Amino acid sequence: MTEAFVSLATTDDYARGANVLGKSLKRSGTTRKSVIMITKNLSSHTKEELAKNWDEMIDITELNSHDKERLAVLERPELGCTFTKLRAWTLTQFKKCVFLDADTMVLQNVDDLFDREELSAAPDVGWPDCFNSGVFVFKPSQDTYVKLLEFAKKVGSFDGGDQGLLNDFFGDWATKGSSHRLPFVYNMVANITYSYTPAFMRYGQNVKIVHFLGAVKPWHHYFDDSTGKVKKLTSGGLAASDVFAKMWWDMFKATGDSYKDSQSGQTGPASWQNWDQARVVYTDRRERWEKGTPDYTGEDRFDNILSHMKSMMITTTDTTAATTTSTTTPPATTTTGISTTSATTTTTSATTTTTSATTTTISATTTTSAVKETKE
Amino acid sequence: MTEAFVSLATTDDYARGANVLGKSLKRSGTTRKSVIMITKNLSSHTKEELAKNWDEMIDITELNSHDKERLAVLERPELGCTFTKLRAWTLTQFKKCVFLDADTMVLQNVDDLFDREELSAAPDVGWPDCFNSGVFVFKPSQDTYVKLLEFAKKVGSFDGGDQGLLNDFFGDWATKGSSHRLPFVYNMVANITYSYTPAFMRYGQNVKIVHFLGAVKPWHHYFDDSTGKVKKLTSGGLAASDVFAKMWWDMFKATGDSYKDSQSGQTGPASWQNWDQARVVYTDRRERWEKGTPDYTGEDRFDNILSHMKSMMITTTDTTAATTTSTTTPPATTTTGISTTSATTTTTSATTTTTSATTTTISATTTTSAVKETKE
Repeated sequence: MTEAFVSLATTDDYARGANVLGKSLKRSGTTRKSVIMITKNLSSHTKEELAKNWDEMIDITELNSHDKERLAVLERPELGCTFTKLRAWTLTQFKKCVFLDADTMVLQNVDDLFDREELSAAPDVGWPDCFNSGVFVFKPSQDTYVKLLEFAKKVGSFDGGDQGLLNDFFGDWATKGSSHRLPFVYNMVANITYSYTPAFMRYGQNVKIVHFLGAVKPWHHYFDDSTGKVKKLTSGGLAASDVFAKMWWDMFKATGDSYKDSQSGQTGPASWQNWDQARVVYTDRRERWEKGTPDYTGEDRFDNILSHMKSMMITTTDTTAATTTSTTTPPATTTTGISTTSATTTTTSATTTTTSATTTTISATTTTSAVKETKE
Repeated sequence: MTEAFVSLATTDDYARGANVLGKSLKRSGTTRKSVIMITKNLSSHTKEELAKNWDEMIDITELNSHDKERLAVLERPELGCTFTKLRAWTLTQFKKCVFLDADTMVLQNVDDLFDREELSAAPDVGWPDCFNSGVFVFKPSQDTYVKLLEFAKKVGSFDGGDQGLLNDFFGDWATKGSSHRLPFVYNMVANITYSYTPAFMRYGQNVKIVHFLGAVKPWHHYFDDSTGKVKKLTSGGLAASDVFAKMWWDMFKATGDSYKDSQSGQTGPASWQNWDQARVVYTDRRERWEKGTPDYTGEDRFDNILSHMKSMMITTTDTTAATTTSTTTPPATTTTGISTTSATTTTTSATTTTTSATTTTISATTTTSAVKETKE
């Protein structure tokens, strides 16, 4: 029996996420199968796209009338979507699986996740004694599936979704041992505005999977084909989250096999190559720093590198004109060793000519100040 | 050698937090010593107050000219405050200690923390592979202290404070085993507005230590002596955070030994007794629910209980008049079994007569809707 990455698409909207996730998995050079579970309400176009980006597509629409799940859904209709995700446990043709939510994106090869046992997951940022159910290692089993259904009927879900249910069912996760606790970089919140920014600066270059939590997903922004830039609906936040949004769009737009890769992970859209290079630059510099005095506030700061990348990638459509600024060029101090030869970096002038008062190019300066928040 | 809870007050402002922390420790019925480290800039009045609420006061102002710390501070002046906290390791008259930041408050006895080894701490909500350094178990040692200073000089702190330094120094915390990972309820963020509200509803009744993170502390709000209510500077947030703010103020105002307690934890200011009772009511009900179908949306919800408590305790001075509402009585559906015999619950009418357009009584209705946020 083989092993597989598994995701789920129940709407055309989330299928857009699933397409990028599937591409990002192939780019990572995984040796495992990729499997997408779908339901019948997807359009035929969506199914065609998913078929291109996933090795296997499994329709989980029909409930077996002998199954316990039909009864379970009848008794707990509010948990309908949750029961759909639980179907992953029925994929017993696979020995072990890694579930990835459709709003995640794989930046580096994560095949080492298959060394972990059920249930392995990363802590949730809101209540870190719970795991986040966007990324988890599990072992398909009809027996576990039935137990999950019975548990759902009896106890319900404290958050109304799969995360509450799975955290109660696998209730020993927090104390079971650190091998079950995935490092946070395997399920890192893409928008860490409210989060612990200095820790991202310290460890963010190791990120393997980003998770676009929240109601606004990257696919809800607008991608300007003429400039190759993302126009975000909302401004603010850490430079990194915008860089990830741009990477998401470039992967979405990539056609054919242009995004694919062997193990090296160095090909793909320009924004992905820039990210790889930023990580290398940062890691090299950090090693040098640790022999002397690190320049945490200077041009080598990871956020300065990211701000520079962001300034080349993103424009923001802001509804609060009074808070916008307009800086057309990033300050000289943010110049890094990052290659600027990609197609996306040569179009800066095109976007800065936008005249709407509410549209602004986010400069490296304003971004840097936004991440100055610290915790006490 | 004995064991001790240790905190630090370097300003009169933070000393207010330390006073409440000291009282809350005594109320918890701890059998350990409480020790407050102070610096010379505190006013004599502040010192008198601290002396009432802590068993021992240790002045750590003077650096020994033979010590390595003077050199360390000279080389890394930006880490001055951090070096002060590190002094806790020099308290070698104690075998083992628990450090508590001055902006924490102990709700239940936590003497079991002394069963843990150095370094035990709870995950930080921003980056949960780091620990939050507001609550940690440590073993005083001159040797460790010197190593910490040397590490600080060489590597620095990735967040400019003690948390970044300690996370690098005790870098194996995340993988060292679950006994070093304190449950989140030992260092729970009081304001979990941006957090995972359903998890608080599920586990919040077990909270042992709350941590008032962020720039605005409870002591920055205004306490109206005539009504016994807290007037908050800012509105919004979860009902629980306001309940904790009220508990902080009631402990701050408590005089003499009125807040003290044996192991039972059932005495103290009325708001503390209400909290205890809310926990009991909720736990009883939850046990009943788990035999049948829990009413997650009805009057038994923990947030409804808390909203009811909050409506009796808090008013908010809001600077955005347009967003305020005025409801003088909580809806009937939030009535719970909580006793309303305390002094703080009989003054509702006094506050609702305030005529300023920007002052409002937060009703249970608006609070409940504020916690409806869920994660995807």
